[in-house]
Amino acid sequence: MASKKDLKNRSREDYAYILEYRTRWSDNDMYDHMNNSIYNFLYDSVINDYLMKHCGLQPPTSPQYGMVVHSHNDYFASISFPACAELALRVNKIGNSSVTYEIALFEKGVEGVRSVGEFVQVFVDRETGRPNARGMNPLLREGLERILVKPPQSKI
Amino acid sequence: MASKKDLKNRSREDYAYILEYRTRWSDNDMYDHMNNSIYNFLYDSVINDYLMKHCGLQPPTSPQYGMVVHSHNDYFASISFPACAELALRVNKIGNSSVTYEIALFEKGVEGVRSVGEFVQVFVDRETGRPNARGMNPLLREGLERILVKPPQSKI
Amino acid sequence: MASKKDLKNRSREDYAYILEYRTRWSDNDMYDHMNNSIYNFLYDSVINDYLMKHCGLQPPTSPQYGMVVHSHNDYFASISFPACAELALRVNKIGNSSVTYEIALFEKGVEGVRSVGEFVQVFVDRETGRPNARGMNPLLREGLERILVKPPQSKI
Amino acid sequence: MASKKDLKNRSREDYAYILEYRTRWSDNDMYDHMNNSIYNFLYDSVINDYLMKHCGLQPPTSPQYGMVVHSHNDYFASISFPACAELALRVNKIGNSSVTYEIALFEKGVEGVRSVGEFVQVFVDRETGRPNARGMNPLLREGLERILVKPPQSKI
Repeated sequence: MASKKDLKNRSREDYAYILEYRTRWSDNDMYDHMNNSIYNFLYDSVINDYLMKHCGLQPPTSPQYGMVVHSHNDYFASISFPACAELALRVNKIGNSSVTYEIALFEKGVEGVRSVGEFVQVFVDRETGRPNARGMNPLLREGLERILVKPPQSKI
Repeated sequence: MASKKDLKNRSREDYAYILEYRTRWSDNDMYDHMNNSIYNFLYDSVINDYLMKHCGLQPPTSPQYGMVVHSHNDYFASISFPACAELALRVNKIGNSSVTYEIALFEKGVEGVRSVGEFVQVFVDRETGRPNARGMNPLLREGLERILVKPPQSKI
Repeated sequence: MASKKDLKNRSREDYAYILEYRTRWSDNDMYDHMNNSIYNFLYDSVINDYLMKHCGLQPPTSPQYGMVVHSHNDYFASISFPACAELALRVNKIGNSSVTYEIALFEKGVEGVRSVGEFVQVFVDRETGRPNARGMNPLLREGLERILVKPPQSKI
Repeated sequence: MASKKDLKNRSREDYAYILEYRTRWSDNDMYDHMNNSIYNFLYDSVINDYLMKHCGLQPPTSPQYGMVVHSHNDYFASISFPACAELALRVNKIGNSSVTYEIALFEKGVEGVRSVGEFVQVFVDRETGRPNARGMNPLLREGLERILVKPPQSKI
């Protein structure tokens, strides 16, 4: 796992897929900045947008869907309504049925990253609610691999 | 008040201020379209965006702020994540301390309107929580008048 | 429709079904009271709780489900986290495929009503997304009739 | 940090403060169970309920307030509307200005834990947005210590 210092230095160039989300009035809490719980809503949104547009996911009918089994997040700076957020996505790891996403939140027009987190999803069969012995279906896998982080090349 | 037929025929040209809001994963309910409660979140967002950018409202410190006392909404067609919504705003009426907004929701790239509603806000003094005898402050009034609907000209 | 004065005088005794909902931190907005959009979330929750427990509704599979086509709400007083809200429900009118709910929000331990609103739902067939010529199914109708307001008896 | 196996075996007896929160219709996502982002809303709610009722926190005016700098969560089983959730809270660690909460979500009437997570908050001065050199104020500290987990006694 990346060190907190590495995470704090993430830039937009570290991510393959970025979407802009306008913040909403209700995102701000009584301290006048976006509530920490809203970050997860936005992380979930960019993940599912990618799954639906690039991995063939159709939430009401797909034979497999993803269940989040773990999430964590580090908050480095705040953002407030009515700013625009940029949600940046990449895949850090793909297993047989599981995938680890890394998501970062930026503010439009501002350089430094606001927060970086990971979601771990397990794809399960809709009929059983359990992972399939053969793992996630190929369409999902191919889509996720397109934004998978490549290991740094050895410098021999 | 406009007839339901008039509302259903609203177009983007009927509104002076339009913002794009990307829908979020959690906006959809179990029937695979945006939950009716989310419309109010978005209406509230475009109103407060306008108040903050064009009427001098600063939520944590302004001497006056708006309290919603009435809202109503008609839903003509649904919208689903991951679509982009366009929120369109105008002011239908300005009183001494109150304002009636009309808000419409469109889907980006689609012609017909999805929903049209009104919010009535009363501006109150932060110190008392009550309207001021002299009404809303001039900066608010001037900003709201800029998007006030003009009555149709008589055709003599 | 009831006058605003009548609505403001509603008491818990005017409703057949009441549930307690604890407010959440994120319900409060920057003005330190529950955001107006949250009322609709809670109205929707007590309605669907009743539909699932007393009218046979199973959201993922029922052949018919309800779509909200109109909502309106009057706000008389505010409520703030961490108060407990009490959501009170009754049915004002039943049509062939439509139902008009009246919902009121109270604060636990406090007498006066905070807000009163109505939701109009149309039950549609899942397959077509349209109302059925024979109207809503009997199990729904019977459940809704149990909390239907009786017209005041004539005083002969 | 506790092992995932330890977390999965948490029971209500491991927590000093428990509140019941009724789930809301909009908490469920398209897969018919509570969306993972909602867990954070509920964690935040039980934490702030405790801070306001037992640690003297008054969000709009207190000289110090808490900012979440890290959160993580493990999801062991799902919960669905209209179930009642029970949110259980304890403090795992207190620093000079920071506190680590552990929060668990149970379903009313069901034994096993649904999820366990931690939130790390740093208390900052309202005026500066930075931690105070003297740390969190005594009222906060005393309140948090009352639900601090005691280290297991050595078995000599």
